[in-house]
Amino acid sequence: MSFNTFGHLFRFTTWGESHGPAIGAVVDGCPPGIALSEADVQPWLDQRRPGTSRFTTQRQEPDQVRILSGVFEGRTTGTPISLMIENVDQRSKDYSEVAKAYRPGHADYAYDAKYGFRDYRGGGRSSARETASRVAAGAVARLVIPEVSIIAWVEAIGGDAIDPANFDAAEIGRNPFFCPDPEAAARWEGLVDAARKAGSSLGAVVACAATGVPAGWGAPLYAKLDAELAAACMGINAVKGVEIGDGFAAARLRGEDNADAMRPGTDGPQFLANHAGGIAGGIATGQPITLRVAFKPTSSILTPVETIDRNGTATEIMTKGRHDPCVGIRGVPVVEAMVALVLADHKLMHRGQCG
Amino acid sequence: MSFNTFGHLFRFTTWGESHGPAIGAVVDGCPPGIALSEADVQPWLDQRRPGTSRFTTQRQEPDQVRILSGVFEGRTTGTPISLMIENVDQRSKDYSEVAKAYRPGHADYAYDAKYGFRDYRGGGRSSARETASRVAAGAVARLVIPEVSIIAWVEAIGGDAIDPANFDAAEIGRNPFFCPDPEAAARWEGLVDAARKAGSSLGAVVACAATGVPAGWGAPLYAKLDAELAAACMGINAVKGVEIGDGFAAARLRGEDNADAMRPGTDGPQFLANHAGGIAGGIATGQPITLRVAFKPTSSILTPVETIDRNGTATEIMTKGRHDPCVGIRGVPVVEAMVALVLADHKLMHRGQCG
Amino acid sequence: MSFNTFGHLFRFTTWGESHGPAIGAVVDGCPPGIALSEADVQPWLDQRRPGTSRFTTQRQEPDQVRILSGVFEGRTTGTPISLMIENVDQRSKDYSEVAKAYRPGHADYAYDAKYGFRDYRGGGRSSARETASRVAAGAVARLVIPEVSIIAWVEAIGGDAIDPANFDAAEIGRNPFFCPDPEAAARWEGLVDAARKAGSSLGAVVACAATGVPAGWGAPLYAKLDAELAAACMGINAVKGVEIGDGFAAARLRGEDNADAMRPGTDGPQFLANHAGGIAGGIATGQPITLRVAFKPTSSILTPVETIDRNGTATEIMTKGRHDPCVGIRGVPVVEAMVALVLADHKLMHRGQCG
Amino acid sequence: MSFNTFGHLFRFTTWGESHGPAIGAVVDGCPPGIALSEADVQPWLDQRRPGTSRFTTQRQEPDQVRILSGVFEGRTTGTPISLMIENVDQRSKDYSEVAKAYRPGHADYAYDAKYGFRDYRGGGRSSARETASRVAAGAVARLVIPEVSIIAWVEAIGGDAIDPANFDAAEIGRNPFFCPDPEAAARWEGLVDAARKAGSSLGAVVACAATGVPAGWGAPLYAKLDAELAAACMGINAVKGVEIGDGFAAARLRGEDNADAMRPGTDGPQFLANHAGGIAGGIATGQPITLRVAFKPTSSILTPVETIDRNGTATEIMTKGRHDPCVGIRGVPVVEAMVALVLADHKLMHRGQCG
Repeated sequence: MSFNTFGHLFRFTTWGESHGPAIGAVVDGCPPGIALSEADVQPWLDQRRPGTSRFTTQRQEPDQVRILSGVFEGRTTGTPISLMIENVDQRSKDYSEVAKAYRPGHADYAYDAKYGFRDYRGGGRSSARETASRVAAGAVARLVIPEVSIIAWVEAIGGDAIDPANFDAAEIGRNPFFCPDPEAAARWEGLVDAARKAGSSLGAVVACAATGVPAGWGAPLYAKLDAELAAACMGINAVKGVEIGDGFAAARLRGEDNADAMRPGTDGPQFLANHAGGIAGGIATGQPITLRVAFKPTSSILTPVETIDRNGTATEIMTKGRHDPCVGIRGVPVVEAMVALVLADHKLMHRGQCG
Repeated sequence: MSFNTFGHLFRFTTWGESHGPAIGAVVDGCPPGIALSEADVQPWLDQRRPGTSRFTTQRQEPDQVRILSGVFEGRTTGTPISLMIENVDQRSKDYSEVAKAYRPGHADYAYDAKYGFRDYRGGGRSSARETASRVAAGAVARLVIPEVSIIAWVEAIGGDAIDPANFDAAEIGRNPFFCPDPEAAARWEGLVDAARKAGSSLGAVVACAATGVPAGWGAPLYAKLDAELAAACMGINAVKGVEIGDGFAAARLRGEDNADAMRPGTDGPQFLANHAGGIAGGIATGQPITLRVAFKPTSSILTPVETIDRNGTATEIMTKGRHDPCVGIRGVPVVEAMVALVLADHKLMHRGQCG
Repeated sequence: MSFNTFGHLFRFTTWGESHGPAIGAVVDGCPPGIALSEADVQPWLDQRRPGTSRFTTQRQEPDQVRILSGVFEGRTTGTPISLMIENVDQRSKDYSEVAKAYRPGHADYAYDAKYGFRDYRGGGRSSARETASRVAAGAVARLVIPEVSIIAWVEAIGGDAIDPANFDAAEIGRNPFFCPDPEAAARWEGLVDAARKAGSSLGAVVACAATGVPAGWGAPLYAKLDAELAAACMGINAVKGVEIGDGFAAARLRGEDNADAMRPGTDGPQFLANHAGGIAGGIATGQPITLRVAFKPTSSILTPVETIDRNGTATEIMTKGRHDPCVGIRGVPVVEAMVALVLADHKLMHRGQCG
Repeated sequence: MSFNTFGHLFRFTTWGESHGPAIGAVVDGCPPGIALSEADVQPWLDQRRPGTSRFTTQRQEPDQVRILSGVFEGRTTGTPISLMIENVDQRSKDYSEVAKAYRPGHADYAYDAKYGFRDYRGGGRSSARETASRVAAGAVARLVIPEVSIIAWVEAIGGDAIDPANFDAAEIGRNPFFCPDPEAAARWEGLVDAARKAGSSLGAVVACAATGVPAGWGAPLYAKLDAELAAACMGINAVKGVEIGDGFAAARLRGEDNADAMRPGTDGPQFLANHAGGIAGGIATGQPITLRVAFKPTSSILTPVETIDRNGTATEIMTKGRHDPCVGIRGVPVVEAMVALVLADHKLMHRGQCG
């Protein structure tokens, strides 16, 4: 409902710029009595942390989170939880050129058009660094929905997709690509390395599944679970598309091929398919919620691109700095976090109206 | 921020069920002094109205809108605009079977899971009939953004896409499919007819472009223009996917192929491409805003499908009633309306913060 | 959070002008399964209805409410409840003079300053007629909080207060003043009659008590129960002051005289006093919630008052029309409704976060 | 709209407990390009700071504010402004008794009832220490409304009021009571000293005037300027009543005595009185906005009071710690801050809808 706040009952507000002293999130509406310490948050931040392999940006950020409020004697008190992460490795010198000219594909020009000027250091507020705040907030959200299990992975890089037959969830944590298919992971190593060395970048598709969401969560008509997941994911840096269930493939199907038939089950209905991705009419059906998210290739590349400067004069720009050759990879923990945040919010909303 | 309200400063709330006495919308926050009468709203409703060709549901609804408040001497007063459309052609008898068993692909089961019971007549609140309220509200939104031109069309039906080389905007209004390619329109006639006669249904892709949006509209980070468009469109009945700009295709590109290079232009920069779909960092760049929306095939089909009844017992269901063989067709004016509503809201928000 | 919407989880949006075709409210977020029909709403509207005694405006409005959505087979469905009341007795001719000159004490000048023009017929949107929508919405709210009993009364008219020793709740419904003190009621008859005949008007104080509110409802820090009650009541037409518990009298006390000491009780603590009015730190303590609301005298009087017209020229105005000699009297059901609406909302919010 | 966030377009969210490591506020929606540094915020915090005279709590807090985001090269960027104040002088040992028993008049019991447990150190989140965050946010709000001048003062302590004839705004800053009447200030010195020495406490009335608010700010019907001011002030710790303009006195007037007659003026109308306190129909009239706020006496007193412990057993409590003998005094800068925050928000909202 506002600019830098997300959620209805379980809400978080983020603040901070790429090269400011710190970034952070304030989580509001978290139920009381939940065990919470920095140790519950840090592992998720470590997943997103830059500099852990040669396939991500070489900026070195420990991303140590501090909880400044809302927890007493190890449990949430129901009051706002302030999470802060200090920025450590800000090399502002890298960005002198960016101050003058607009990087195509970045938010530079749009921010100037909106606000009249911008914090150009590392993209300022528009930097993907802000997503660390989301991951921290998402870690709190996970604790609110222990009945739900959320897992995301990279499904394709630069158009090279995994083989669904090879899907093995246990593989996801074993390679730097969050890839569930070991063969694809092997291929991607060469692919991403080549792009990195060429100063180029690659797009990616991230998939996510949330199991254990009870039938009934969600809220018609303008807080539909799928609409809020779409907003949550489309709002991640570099995302250009979101699909729920079969997504665009459903647009090619006939009605009889798209039906998720039901049979009597032991605990609720047994569904014979999940084309809908676990959501009907904006409300969870009890099936796994499945979605796919398209990440564009990182806009920061070493190829010079035509652009203009702040005075509107023609120039060229080549983004040196340190950047991810495939920003979709580090998007995996961010997608998971956003899904957790939406689901925690909808759990509370459902309980409020129908509990 | 709530369940049946959409928007921040320019907001609308809808109410009404498919087979209740009426449906409607309350538009709040509309600027004062804008010329408005029923004649400004009716043409858009007529575009969405059922029963105008054999390719849509045969329910006959005149969809006559009444303005009950917020207008004085032909101009908006700045107070809430209440729009009401009476339901005329409700054949509740068609829906007796639906009361007992859950229609796969519909919201029947999910609503029962959430609320404990549901208004089963014609889908009640989950019916696409509610989208008439959105179109009415969207007609008001259009008047708030006279600088913007919004046009949507059907890009593909059942996987059969238009040929971009044949694109002719003038064709969109000349066929019952909102199709800009006369050759595709001719093919779709047979395609949709065949599906209709077979009691089947087809999915579709709707595309939309909004030109004239000034650079600067939009709002980081949790009211991003693209995120709000995604929510607005994903919340339309039967939608399963949303793309901004190149969407999922961008995930297959390399950075240098995805760059929207800039040159000095006469009125702001001249962009050499528009992969981004007119939005960067959640803020409009001044280019046309482009998006694509995937509609699944109508779930109501004449093929019997396995399902369960309210007691959890196995049964079969075949949805007789009157239904659209391709619900995506009538989605075109709804997508336009939602885009108009998001843009009107962001115009006011931008003016509020940066005006 | 918006202009014409009130509440968080249990929300209502009102629309309509004094002399338009109708007024109404959309209630959103009401829990499902609650028995609801027009018969549950009408009695409260009848309490507020004008023209029932010579002590209120002589405008004759039946104030018949219609429920247009959100109810199926006699029960709420969890979807928006649209309530509509048609305006019947609009005598627009009474207001021709108001179109030109600003009535001091009314919103005429302020609306023109804000919106550039206004619906001057009967005050348009700023008319107290809008409070009928609140009373209708409040009737629904009452059904959401059956554990709570809300009662309001007039405590003073024109500075003539009831004697607390005479307080008898049963008397409130027996006189046209909602007066719990039969002696005061007798005095007020002469007092209000005299003001009415003189073309003058009188202010009033309305008191309200809500019993049965469980300890724990409420929400720090910017949705405090007392802050929201203050907003709800200060937003009623003609209200200029709100007190919780002892209110301004507490500002004259010493700490030891203001303490609400506690003893062990049978069901929660037994409080020895209720200076706080049942709220501490923005959260209900389980004691009765008590508040007082100051209504200014009706601004429409038969005494000519200096003013200016729309061109800024000096003139005089004398409001003929039909008006309440003491608008506070009909404020009683409105205060009750607003208190019910706030409490229903907080019940759902509390259940959402802490349920 | 949420629990710990206030405002619509200009919003702030506060976090932090009395004895946690820090407290803070995130200000969102601030227009870009405004000169802002810690030096703009600190003076207002210094006004509210404890320990500056013997008439306030002896807790020593430097209340040094840090700006962690949203400012670049000395100007606001339009992105969230994170303000942090470290807690320095937390003596948690003082509060061991509070952990066990409920302090009457405090939020202890209510928080336990709501959340199941609480951070009892210094009142945790319910401590008036949180108001430092409001004052910091309010300092930013003031910069958004340079056309407005806000001044508050103490009008009465323990029932001993200033003489309006002695009112001298220049006096307010010259005594520790924010008292505009030097004679009253002299009396209050003895009054407050006596209460402090007796371990007692006193209530107070704070008055506030905001001049320069343009006619037109405000927003009917559920974001009325007076309703939002009422919520803003009633939400301050220890506040039990709010009046706009004449407030409860208006309830004793006749219509002709309450009229704010108008004459042609040089810049808008000249009003002959301001009973309404500068607001009609929820919208500013251009006159000074005047309000009064009642603070109860501090609940923490050295007199033992009957209470119960967490097990419901009878006990007595006497709050040792360090406390304000008259919390209303330090309420002055908080009232000013809340008024500034409401007005900044309404300026942006007005510009958004009507700009």
